[in-house]
Formats: sequence, C-alpha cells, structure tokens
Amino acid sequence: MSKLRVAVLGAQGRIGAEAVKAVEAAEDMELVAALGRGDKLETLAEAGAQVAVELTTPASVMGNLDFLIRHNIHGVVGTTGWTEDRLAQLGTWLDGAPETGVLIAPNFSIGAVLTMKFAAQAARYFESVEVVELHHPNKVDAPSGTATRTAQLIAAARAEAGLGAQPDATATALDGARGADVDGVPVHAIRLRGLLAHQEVLLGGEGETLTIRHDSLHHSSFMPGILLGVRRVTQTPGLTFGLEHFLDLG
Amino acid sequence: MSKLRVAVLGAQGRIGAEAVKAVEAAEDMELVAALGRGDKLETLAEAGAQVAVELTTPASVMGNLDFLIRHNIHGVVGTTGWTEDRLAQLGTWLDGAPETGVLIAPNFSIGAVLTMKFAAQAARYFESVEVVELHHPNKVDAPSGTATRTAQLIAAARAEAGLGAQPDATATALDGARGADVDGVPVHAIRLRGLLAHQEVLLGGEGETLTIRHDSLHHSSFMPGILLGVRRVTQTPGLTFGLEHFLDLG
Amino acid sequence: MSKLRVAVLGAQGRIGAEAVKAVEAAEDMELVAALGRGDKLETLAEAGAQVAVELTTPASVMGNLDFLIRHNIHGVVGTTGWTEDRLAQLGTWLDGAPETGVLIAPNFSIGAVLTMKFAAQAARYFESVEVVELHHPNKVDAPSGTATRTAQLIAAARAEAGLGAQPDATATALDGARGADVDGVPVHAIRLRGLLAHQEVLLGGEGETLTIRHDSLHHSSFMPGILLGVRRVTQTPGLTFGLEHFLDLG
Amino acid sequence: MSKLRVAVLGAQGRIGAEAVKAVEAAEDMELVAALGRGDKLETLAEAGAQVAVELTTPASVMGNLDFLIRHNIHGVVGTTGWTEDRLAQLGTWLDGAPETGVLIAPNFSIGAVLTMKFAAQAARYFESVEVVELHHPNKVDAPSGTATRTAQLIAAARAEAGLGAQPDATATALDGARGADVDGVPVHAIRLRGLLAHQEVLLGGEGETLTIRHDSLHHSSFMPGILLGVRRVTQTPGLTFGLEHFLDLG
Repeated sequence: MSKLRVAVLGAQGRIGAEAVKAVEAAEDMELVAALGRGDKLETLAEAGAQVAVELTTPASVMGNLDFLIRHNIHGVVGTTGWTEDRLAQLGTWLDGAPETGVLIAPNFSIGAVLTMKFAAQAARYFESVEVVELHHPNKVDAPSGTATRTAQLIAAARAEAGLGAQPDATATALDGARGADVDGVPVHAIRLRGLLAHQEVLLGGEGETLTIRHDSLHHSSFMPGILLGVRRVTQTPGLTFGLEHFLDLG
Repeated sequence: MSKLRVAVLGAQGRIGAEAVKAVEAAEDMELVAALGRGDKLETLAEAGAQVAVELTTPASVMGNLDFLIRHNIHGVVGTTGWTEDRLAQLGTWLDGAPETGVLIAPNFSIGAVLTMKFAAQAARYFESVEVVELHHPNKVDAPSGTATRTAQLIAAARAEAGLGAQPDATATALDGARGADVDGVPVHAIRLRGLLAHQEVLLGGEGETLTIRHDSLHHSSFMPGILLGVRRVTQTPGLTFGLEHFLDLG
Repeated sequence: MSKLRVAVLGAQGRIGAEAVKAVEAAEDMELVAALGRGDKLETLAEAGAQVAVELTTPASVMGNLDFLIRHNIHGVVGTTGWTEDRLAQLGTWLDGAPETGVLIAPNFSIGAVLTMKFAAQAARYFESVEVVELHHPNKVDAPSGTATRTAQLIAAARAEAGLGAQPDATATALDGARGADVDGVPVHAIRLRGLLAHQEVLLGGEGETLTIRHDSLHHSSFMPGILLGVRRVTQTPGLTFGLEHFLDLG
Repeated sequence: MSKLRVAVLGAQGRIGAEAVKAVEAAEDMELVAALGRGDKLETLAEAGAQVAVELTTPASVMGNLDFLIRHNIHGVVGTTGWTEDRLAQLGTWLDGAPETGVLIAPNFSIGAVLTMKFAAQAARYFESVEVVELHHPNKVDAPSGTATRTAQLIAAARAEAGLGAQPDATATALDGARGADVDGVPVHAIRLRGLLAHQEVLLGGEGETLTIRHDSLHHSSFMPGILLGVRRVTQTPGLTFGLEHFLDLG
C-alpha cells in the first residue's frame, strides 16, 4: 500500500516538531514537507501532500486553509481562535471542494476527549457530579479551559435528561470552599508543583461513585490523536469539529 | 399519568427488601405485590402487576418467568445462574408473547455497567491497560467476576481493533507481581479491611493515562438500575441481556 | 491477666452503642456498666470500673468527669465542646488525682489522626500543598472541621520551616475555583451522593507529588481508636488532648 | 554568610548534570568543581570543596570516598551497590576522620522516603496493608526495589507490633491475582505506557482506609533531597545510611 503523503505547517513549534517526528515514525505515512515561518505554501503542492497538519497561529491559519482547500489538500488543524465568522468562511470554501476534509480539534489528546465524552454520557445517570482539575502552579487561568468545557457538556447532558439542581445541604461555607459554579456544576482547580495537567470527574449516586480521571504527563500525548486525524480526514469530506467524531465508540 | 404497577419477587431477601422500598419511593410506580418464599404467583395476576422484579434464586427463576410471560407481565431479573439452555427456553416462551419484555442483568449497578462499557470503548485507543479490583477480605474468589468480565470485554475490543500484545519488558519478577492474565489483560486483586467493592481500569498511551474507577459503597447502588429497568422493559419486547442496552450513550 | 474493667457513658447513642459492642468484643476488657440518660453515676463505682468511655453531650460531660476523677476512674472522652475554661477546670481536678488519666480526642479515627500528623510532617518538605475533602451532600458546613484543622496544622508546619507563600501564577479565575483559603492553604470541599467522609492532602515539589488520603466508610472506624485510648489512658496520668499522643510513631 | 563549597562527581551523567544545575541554583551553595570520567580527584582539594556529591558507579565510588575522607571532604552518595564489606571499610576510614560525614541514600526522593516512613509507622494500626507500584512498561524488574523495600519495612513494623497474618478469605484465585508475597505483604506491579514511577500503599482497618501515594514525574525530584543532604551532612559526622535520618519528623 502506498503511504499517505503528509506535511506539517508550524514545524518549528514545540508541538509541530513533535508532529514531524510522529509522522516520520508512522509506518503508513511519509513526511513530504515541514514548513516553518516564512516558508512558501507552494512547497506543499509541489511535494504532492495529501494531508497537512496545521499547527501555526490564529494569524496564519485562515490563509493556510484557503491554500489547502484550493489545492484539495485535507487539513488537520490544532490552531485555536475559532469564531463563528471564521467557521462560516471555512464552510464556504469547503462547499467548493466537496472531496476535501478539514478536522479542527481543540484538543488532540484522546484521553481528554474520551474523558469529556464519558463524563457527559454518565452524567444523566448520577445525582451529583463535580470536576477537579489539577495543574502546575505556573498556569495563569483557573479553572482550565478543558475543565470548563467538561462542566458545560455535563450540564447540558443533565438538562437534556431532565435532572434538576444537584443535592447540596451546605448552609455555612468558607468563601470558595465549594468551588466555581459552571452551569450548576462545581469545578475545583488545584495548583501543585510537580504536576502537569490532570482532570478528574466525580459522579455520585445512591451507594456508588464513578470517577473518570485523565493524566497528561507529556505533550507527546497529542500525537496519537493527530495521526488518527490524518488517517480519518481523508475519508471524511467537509468540516469536522472535535476529535470525538473520529472515535469509534459504538 | 397513571402509575406503573410493580411487583417484587424475593421481597424478603436483602436486595429484595431494598427493591420494595425503592419501588414504594418512586413517584411513577405503585407497589402492588411483594412476594416471599411460599407466596402464590397468582397474587401477581390478581394485583394487576405490569412489571415484576425477580430477585429470587436459580431454583425458582424459571418457574416464575414462565408464569410472568404467560400472564403478559414484564420481568426485570437479577437472579443469576443463566445457561444457554435456560436462555433458549426463555426465548421460546417470549416468542409466544410478542409484547412482553424481559431484562436479565448480571449487574444492576449503573456505575459498574458504565465502567465496563467505557473501558471497552477506550481500550482500542491505548497501548496498555490493566484492571485492579479491591474488596473486603471476606471475599472468597479473586479476581471478582466483574473484573474478569471487564478484562474479557477489553481484550475483545483490543482484538477487534487489531492491537497486539501489551508492551511489557519485565524480565525478572516475583511470582504473582504482574497479576493474573485474563486474555492478555493483567488483573490485580486487593483485599483490605474497610473496603466494600471497588474497581479501577487503568489505560495508558504515549504521554497520558486514563483511569475509570467505580466505588460501590452500599447495595442500594442497585436500585437506580432496577428502577430504570422497570421503566424501560415495558417498551422493549423480547429478551434483553445486560442493563447497558437500556442506557442512552449516544 | 485480669481484664480491664470498662464502662460506657452515653451507651444509647449511635457511637455509644458501637462502643459497648467493641468493649464486649475486646479480649482484654470486660464491660462492667453501660449508662444512658438518667442512669446514676454511682453505678460506675459500684461496678468497679477502671476506665469510663464518655460519649455523652457537652451539657453532661463536666459533671461526669468530676465524678470519674473523684473516684479515680480514668476517662476516654469523645464528647465535644471544649473551651479553655473547661480544660482549665479539668486540669485543676486532675491535679488533685495524680494517678488518674483523661484522654480527650476530637477524632478517634486512627486514619484521620495519622493523616493530619503525616500531612504536617511532610508539609515542610514540599513547595505546594492543598486539601480536598469529600462528603455526602447532606453535610451542612464546608469545609469540614477536620479539613480546616488539617490545613491549620499544615500552615503552622510551613511557617515553622520558614516556607513562604505557595507558588500560584493564577491571574484570572472564576470565583471559588481556587478553593477556600485557610491560613494560606487552599481547601476544596466536594459534595457527592454516595460518599461518606473522605479527605485527601496533596503535596507537590520539584518533579514529584505525595498524596495522603483517608476514607471513612463507617463510624465503626472510631472503635480501634477508642480501645487504644482505653488501654493507654491507664498508664498516662493527667490530661492528654488528641489521640495522636497515644500513637507510637517513632 | 559564606556559601557552602560543593563539588559534583559524575557530573556528566543524567542525574549528575541535574545536580550541577541544582547546586548552581542554590543560593547558599557555590559549585567549585564538576568532575566527569577521567578527571583528577586532586581538583576537589585544590578547589577547596567542603562537600562532594558522589553520583558515579559502583566501580569508582570506593576510590572516590577514600580520597574524600582523607581530605576531610563530606560526601553525599547516590551511587548504589553497597555490601556489608564495603560499609565496614567505609566505617574504618571514617573512624580516622572524626569530623567528616558521609550520607549514603538509596533514594533521594523525599516523597519516596516519606512514603516508606509513613507506611511503616501506620502499619501497626491497620489489619490490612498492600502495596501497588506502577511504572512505564520498559522496566525490567517487578516489583520495583522501592516497593519490595517498602513491603519489608511494613512487615517488620507489623511483626514488632505483634500483628499476625492479614485477613484474607480467598479460596479460589487465578494465578497471580493476589500479587507477590513479600514477607506476608501483597505487592502488585502495574506496567503502563505513559507512566513514570508511582507507588501506593493501601492500609485498611474497621470502617476506614488510609492511602499513601507517591508519584515521581521527573528525576529532578532527587534534587531537593540531594541539597538537603549537602546541608545536613556537614553537621553530621560519621556514616548515615538513608535520607530519612536527615528529615525532621518530630
């Protein structure tokens, strides 16, 4: 079988450099281009790239995707900063290239994506649910974007299942003890030297609890998700938002 | 809306007594009969039961189900001891009552069922996976039936996804250190005073781990699953094996 | 060896009833009296009690201890509500009975006491430390008294070791995300159906973390601590505050 | 205050290179020499080193320590391979240098040392105890040396406290399910891609459990222990075996 011809944009960044190595190491892929700041996009077409992994910046991503779609190169995008306007523009471009696929993934860690998915699925079956995220103390925001998103998905699942407010008899509390309230789901942020990025969802019902925990110990954890995206995007025309759509959870 | 008319068979057992209370407490149900050893099955028909929760013994269950199906009463069955012969017999009976449903569930704990389901779904995306079960020290078998079943489901999912043997460079080991081998999945059993019934599935891939843990702290944890079964079995003719089929995980 | 003659005051309360059973089951003890509301204290002297386990109410405890000390009966006290005035009064009484010992313990769970002790010992060696307590949702205060006390002990140990503020780069946070501040130690309170009483102390330093977790699954967990107190108080004249002083941690 | 003059032997190894950086970063220390393979020991004396961190190999360590002691330079030793003969030889040398101190530490991770210490202290108060260690799948031995040592310390503490065999009703078990037996303490080894080095000690008694967990995420975790050793060894003449003797756990 011939190998998939893959390019990396943003190859000099921390994640980009990992992606270059991951593509090179994948037996079913061939790295045909690795572009950094200032390199010409034409290289991608000349190299015959079938898929491009886009790991640049919000300032560059739209121009890059415009080029990719015009050349029928599939895109796997980790760059952030997506707005409704941008997504609409991207949709228009893709309408003109019905065989081209683009995957945009806010998180390429399969463990993180599964944690969110499982948490939302389980949420409808438990009275109580809280989210704890744990990170290194250099992190500037609390809670993490992933924890906030997880809590929102849980809250939506609870609402859909007709669950009301969570049971909580707290009458006297120190400020902050019960965490931040994200759509009715308490979220707690822990900052500890020695940690990297971790998240735990605790669900509780009559006589039992279910805990789903994700520990991210290295950004190499994004690579299996990126490779999975590269393989699946070639068979998925149009826009896909979120790696979860490429996971077989049947 | 009229309430669902529910009976409990085996109402004097530990789980049965809990089920009686749970049905009584459910707003959408009415307890119309609670039968113990020696009570007549005809009571069920006279009471107009629509669903019967069957929590007796392997010696009684077939006779009870025969009666239920002949009277078009749906069954929710927690009694164990199912063989292929018994299931075939039950299928024949149900063929003659096309509107009647029977749910047999080896485990009514929603947390336990979700743990197995999620573990099998996630297994295809991780190189490594091991199962740890933790119980009180009076338990006579190791590993638990649930842990063995979980490992088997994981192994099947790995095989289907084309994953090979797990990475393990162990060259010198004390006997037993690496656990029991269940279809290639290591299973470890911990026995500790103070514990009840707990299970943890650990999945590991490049740079990340995913942990799914179920803690069962009281047998009241079976009640939400039994009530869910009662509600759903009325709309599900035929035989359903496993509570997971009644969970909406879409 | 003759058995230790033990009485229980408050024998009809939930913990008191457990204590009666625990003393009866202990091979080196004999239950000589079990007093409830309205029973006469003289019974203790007539029964020849050597040690009395005091599990009544703040309204009764001083009168009971006055009687015990005057009759040279050692006391093991779980009743709460201690003030400096009460402790001073008790000290005066004990000065007049130099062979009599009284142990007052805010918490008889050996696991809880060890968690506090170990957390305080470890705290001086780690840059970061946070406390998470997890309870059933019927609890009215947050955080728990034990968690607050643990955080205070940790803060005192950090101060003594000359550690400054914990590292925390948080610049933008949702209200409550970073928990309650107890003397500079973040404390997070989780409320979940299915839980009982649990506490986790997380300590983090360069490249490593240490976690100490206590799970209390039943109030029978107080019994080993009460029996230990009964055995040790006979050899420890005067007032001892806190079960930790009776643990050999050398 | 004048800074402590510190040298590193084995400065080109992975841990040695970290030690060089850690000494340079310590405000109360000055790095005066960093020796690799082939460098002359005389450099240490010429540089006026007061303490040398010895991170070489079993083949070099005795020659290095002989030199250090003859020049009254304190030693902090992470090199392994200690036998009774070697320790006796070292003792003889130190007898001739009554002001010189040598610390040998099998493990410089403060978290690992505290875990062992706390586990042994707690062991006498719980009926049940098991050890779980979790490592990356490239590890060749199971269980880890640290886990075996931890189990031995626990077993010794139980024996000293007069505890008998652990409760365990297991009658039928799959081979290996109950782990390896180390002096009566079950030890379980988990191997998972994504993990580094982790250990958990689970203690259980009536109605409660206590868990002590150490997660080592980077070998930089050895540095605080090495720096602590450097500071304390100057005030501790003679031989000290084990970092725990330098921790204040009063």
